[in-house]
Amino acid sequence: MSGGGRIVISPLIFYRHHQAVSNALKATVCERTADRVSVVAAAAGVSSIRRCFSTSTMPKMSAENSTKCLEMDNLNPNIKVMEYAVRGPLVTRAGEIEKELQKGVQKPFKEVIKANIGDCHAMGQKPITYIRQVLALVSYPALLSDSRFPDDVKQKAQTILGGCRGGSVGSYTDSPGIEIIRRHAAQYIERRDGIPSDWQNIILTAGASDGIKGIVKLMICNKNSKKPGVMIPIPQYPLYSATLAEFDMEQIGYYLNESTGWGLEVNELKRSYAEASKTCCPRALVVINPGNPTGQVLSRKNIEEVVKFAHEHDLFILADEVYQDNVYAEGSKFHAFKKVMMEMGKPYSDHELASFMSCSKGYMGECGLRGGYVELINMCPQVKLMYLKALSAMLCPTVLGQTVIDCIVDPPKKGEPSYDLFIKEKTAVLDSLKLRAKMVYDAFNSFEGFSCNHVQGAMYAFPQIKLPPKAIEEAKRRKQPADAFYAFELLEQTGICIVPGSGFGQQPGTFHFRTTILPQPDKLKIMLQMFNSFHKEFMQKYK
Amino acid sequence: MSGGGRIVISPLIFYRHHQAVSNALKATVCERTADRVSVVAAAAGVSSIRRCFSTSTMPKMSAENSTKCLEMDNLNPNIKVMEYAVRGPLVTRAGEIEKELQKGVQKPFKEVIKANIGDCHAMGQKPITYIRQVLALVSYPALLSDSRFPDDVKQKAQTILGGCRGGSVGSYTDSPGIEIIRRHAAQYIERRDGIPSDWQNIILTAGASDGIKGIVKLMICNKNSKKPGVMIPIPQYPLYSATLAEFDMEQIGYYLNESTGWGLEVNELKRSYAEASKTCCPRALVVINPGNPTGQVLSRKNIEEVVKFAHEHDLFILADEVYQDNVYAEGSKFHAFKKVMMEMGKPYSDHELASFMSCSKGYMGECGLRGGYVELINMCPQVKLMYLKALSAMLCPTVLGQTVIDCIVDPPKKGEPSYDLFIKEKTAVLDSLKLRAKMVYDAFNSFEGFSCNHVQGAMYAFPQIKLPPKAIEEAKRRKQPADAFYAFELLEQTGICIVPGSGFGQQPGTFHFRTTILPQPDKLKIMLQMFNSFHKEFMQKYK
Repeated sequence: MSGGGRIVISPLIFYRHHQAVSNALKATVCERTADRVSVVAAAAGVSSIRRCFSTSTMPKMSAENSTKCLEMDNLNPNIKVMEYAVRGPLVTRAGEIEKELQKGVQKPFKEVIKANIGDCHAMGQKPITYIRQVLALVSYPALLSDSRFPDDVKQKAQTILGGCRGGSVGSYTDSPGIEIIRRHAAQYIERRDGIPSDWQNIILTAGASDGIKGIVKLMICNKNSKKPGVMIPIPQYPLYSATLAEFDMEQIGYYLNESTGWGLEVNELKRSYAEASKTCCPRALVVINPGNPTGQVLSRKNIEEVVKFAHEHDLFILADEVYQDNVYAEGSKFHAFKKVMMEMGKPYSDHELASFMSCSKGYMGECGLRGGYVELINMCPQVKLMYLKALSAMLCPTVLGQTVIDCIVDPPKKGEPSYDLFIKEKTAVLDSLKLRAKMVYDAFNSFEGFSCNHVQGAMYAFPQIKLPPKAIEEAKRRKQPADAFYAFELLEQTGICIVPGSGFGQQPGTFHFRTTILPQPDKLKIMLQMFNSFHKEFMQKYK
Repeated sequence: MSGGGRIVISPLIFYRHHQAVSNALKATVCERTADRVSVVAAAAGVSSIRRCFSTSTMPKMSAENSTKCLEMDNLNPNIKVMEYAVRGPLVTRAGEIEKELQKGVQKPFKEVIKANIGDCHAMGQKPITYIRQVLALVSYPALLSDSRFPDDVKQKAQTILGGCRGGSVGSYTDSPGIEIIRRHAAQYIERRDGIPSDWQNIILTAGASDGIKGIVKLMICNKNSKKPGVMIPIPQYPLYSATLAEFDMEQIGYYLNESTGWGLEVNELKRSYAEASKTCCPRALVVINPGNPTGQVLSRKNIEEVVKFAHEHDLFILADEVYQDNVYAEGSKFHAFKKVMMEMGKPYSDHELASFMSCSKGYMGECGLRGGYVELINMCPQVKLMYLKALSAMLCPTVLGQTVIDCIVDPPKKGEPSYDLFIKEKTAVLDSLKLRAKMVYDAFNSFEGFSCNHVQGAMYAFPQIKLPPKAIEEAKRRKQPADAFYAFELLEQTGICIVPGSGFGQQPGTFHFRTTILPQPDKLKIMLQMFNSFHKEFMQKYK
């Protein structure tokens, strides 16, 4: 893959994978007795042992001589190149360290703090009671007669069960989801935007990732012998780079401007588009708002500019709006792409847009339940028919994930028995996240060589770190990118697991990392102190 | 797509889709005001209305003139050709009829009977209490102190919560699933086969479909400029044809022998392989056992032959064993591919195999909860690393789906409080299915022109129907395949929804349909009577 504004794929990742592969090879090789593999080996009656992948360091063998049906040599090449840094080798190492701690290995810390992934409940956030009560009732309807469950919870459960064939969440639903939930989602969007929403444009998905992949997939089309490409922000959420790699589509990176608080600038969009157009066919534009990993919240004016740009260049807009409830900064406000685009009037209000939502983020943080939806706006009806047809082969998204979405888009109303608790719990989560966003911002900006933009929204900080030349040299010696070297050192010495900026993309020559703001306030405080001590020592060592 | 043993793709499906597209077009066209679409239109200040796809009946427009970013012309071509008959146009029509009935439209029947899909709970099967109690407790752990839940249910819930980060099912799990559940699955397989199973080879998935697609995807690799191909039975479950179409892989059909009870014959495998090898590179062999839609259960000897064939031809075996609990016929027994392959000894015991399981079938029928797993046997370790890496971008399968799998692979044990009820409910479902398998077999074989093999296992009958020449002519006149014409007539006149054989593949010149055996016995009896009356009239009309 090559092309305009393309990010440099982290050599670290390949480095670590090479390590993992080497280690695996030490432990095991793919072998098969040689009934047909090699005449010589068969004649000798011995096993033909061959490592089942080809690298330049190994003798090449012909296809006939291969010892496995499926080996590195004939594996889907896109699977080989795709990477997902949020769960990459650093996280694997963090898991190993956790097991070492369990076995009593002495470390300078007691536990691993997984600040690598937006996994709210894993970091101690409590589930919203209303959601969990509804889940219990739809799963086990015998509880519908239990007087300890509030009436609105029962009513919600009955509504959902009424939408399930045979009254069971164990039935398949229509492939785009249960009609009443799609209707509730449309009503939710209407309340949010003051703009009509058609429930038939709402497709429930197994988390936002599932929805995003399903829409990007539609654009795999090599016309005029040019690869299709998708514009994504750099830094980006690595689902996008992984999906584009899997689909053999061009990743067209446009840089966010760190010096203006990760601003999304139209000139940069133009530069990136122009460069990419030479080699590929740009099809879509991804915007993550609020930003991941960058935490910025786009202004209305900025969104208007982006819509204009997309319209001028015939780019389908993918609006990743899963953090729409996570806006903390004074003066920041979430503006839905759809609302802005519709209010701009024609021709923009006819432009194509897909907006993604998830139950994994916001105040609910139900990552493990895999609920999400996409709203399709102005999609060509024939294309939509094809999309729905493609969905049908996967039957339906999980009904319990759909259930969680329903609780979010049709929450308890004022006066209903669950309302007060729901609001209290929701507000507590969001207020605490706001507090933590500031804690992280303040702490990092007090570290030598760190600069961190405001965490206006989402759940992450993405500070820049100026590393001393000696540290960069040491990283080179270890064949690691310097940010990865720093992150591995941090993990080994403090148990804090972050993700190096190279996993998200960054301007060449700069170093960053992403940390979530999800550890609970007490633990976050300790984490930031440990981080500070580590950083001081690190800077001292490599001064 | 072309190649050896390729099934004839149903013209019906294209016919019906064409209809749907035409209808959609009547209702709506893709339009956009012409700021940049057409100079003439812009100059005139009018909207440029163009249908957003190209057919031979429409004037071609250049890419610059296109009115949508994403239209039929630049849509992923694989998405255009893929089909999934189980949810195809007949089912769409069934849904329309249901709505008509609700509106009070008079029909010769009161309800639609959806015998098109293996959707157990939708057809009145009751969930297993144990599974649902565990789901309620892991969703809403406040119930752990409720004295009305049995102790073993509580213990199970606590075990699962213990495997969840932060003790919440709302956390992401490892991408291959929760370790303790993977361990339980390995123990289950060991108990089933008497052969060791390594928990690290168990990957939990969002239903079997998800697992199958994930493994097939690994083999997308156009080496020697030959398309990769996968051998699938004909008739087949259309997930396979849909997946291969989506991945642009060759579908290599091998016919099952209807006259020997849908026998899987090695000579036919050889014929099919030889023919396909001329044009594509066969990579894998799919076997569905017990069969879908055909209901046969393979003998041990037959499986041995298949393993030998796959080994000789370097084909990765995909064993779709989701109906392993659904064996009804006297003398039939489920033999796991893994067990047979391992007991055959070397070199076969080193062969690569993936075996798929689901919580949607068996006695549990929890289709909507999307649980499943794959056991990977003898997979090249480096390939497995790549597979796990690819999984990680989709985060994890739904934790509640994983929970259901745990209940199946680690069910209540003798002496535990839930054991008796669990066995009673499980046995009742399986006994009733056995009864219904016989009811359907007996009834169909009494119909003029029908012949139906024994339903030895799974949940379907796939009878052959000899249609009178006049009916075939009438179908031709209507531009439908004759089996589809018959199925549409049946639906319109009785409300019974079946799937024509053309959706699964059949020998040219023969006609079949698939019906599930899932309507509850009383309803099934009525369905078969209505079917009989319809069939008599149909035969009379077209005699």
